[in-house]
Amino acid sequence: MDEQTQTTQPTTKRINDNTVYVGKKGVMGYVLAVVTNFNNGAAEVTIKARGHLISRAVDVEEIVKHRFVPDVKLKDIKLMTEELQSRDGHQSKVSAIEIILSK
Amino acid sequence: MDEQTQTTQPTTKRINDNTVYVGKKGVMGYVLAVVTNFNNGAAEVTIKARGHLISRAVDVEEIVKHRFVPDVKLKDIKLMTEELQSRDGHQSKVSAIEIILSK
Repeated sequence: MDEQTQTTQPTTKRINDNTVYVGKKGVMGYVLAVVTNFNNGAAEVTIKARGHLISRAVDVEEIVKHRFVPDVKLKDIKLMTEELQSRDGHQSKVSAIEIILSK
Repeated sequence: MDEQTQTTQPTTKRINDNTVYVGKKGVMGYVLAVVTNFNNGAAEVTIKARGHLISRAVDVEEIVKHRFVPDVKLKDIKLMTEELQSRDGHQSKVSAIEIILSK
């Protein structure tokens, strides 16, 4: 019954904006962000990271899967290279990862 | 002609043992190892790494793909958790990655 109730309010950005950017903080903060997204009804959550933080993104995915959301599926993993421009105009390349989890 | 020549010597470990373990050395050494495997006729090369070296494994994959073997395909990526036992018997978990490239 509840699931079929339609309200006039738009379900703001729920469907496509479930991205967690992994930064320098502790890994559990990002785990919590992913879990919260799923608990709020997200069907998919994307974990993104660049450079040496890629390892931490994998830690986040593994902890979410093994400890908090056992029925989560690893939908896709994308590896890419991004170009960064430093303040002096020098360009450098950095690897990046996108881990897409679905429920 | 050459390709069909059959010798009695076994083609030792060519097919299944093309794994490059990424460690603490410079990234280009591992890139070279992957490229050499492909040049020696490997159809598939697996790049493996654990912990914070996962980021370096992604660097290796990106450099191989963009600079050295443009026709390589990203066949599969596996994320997993491995258990390590330290000398005092304490167990710890570490994330790991396997990147499987094919040609």
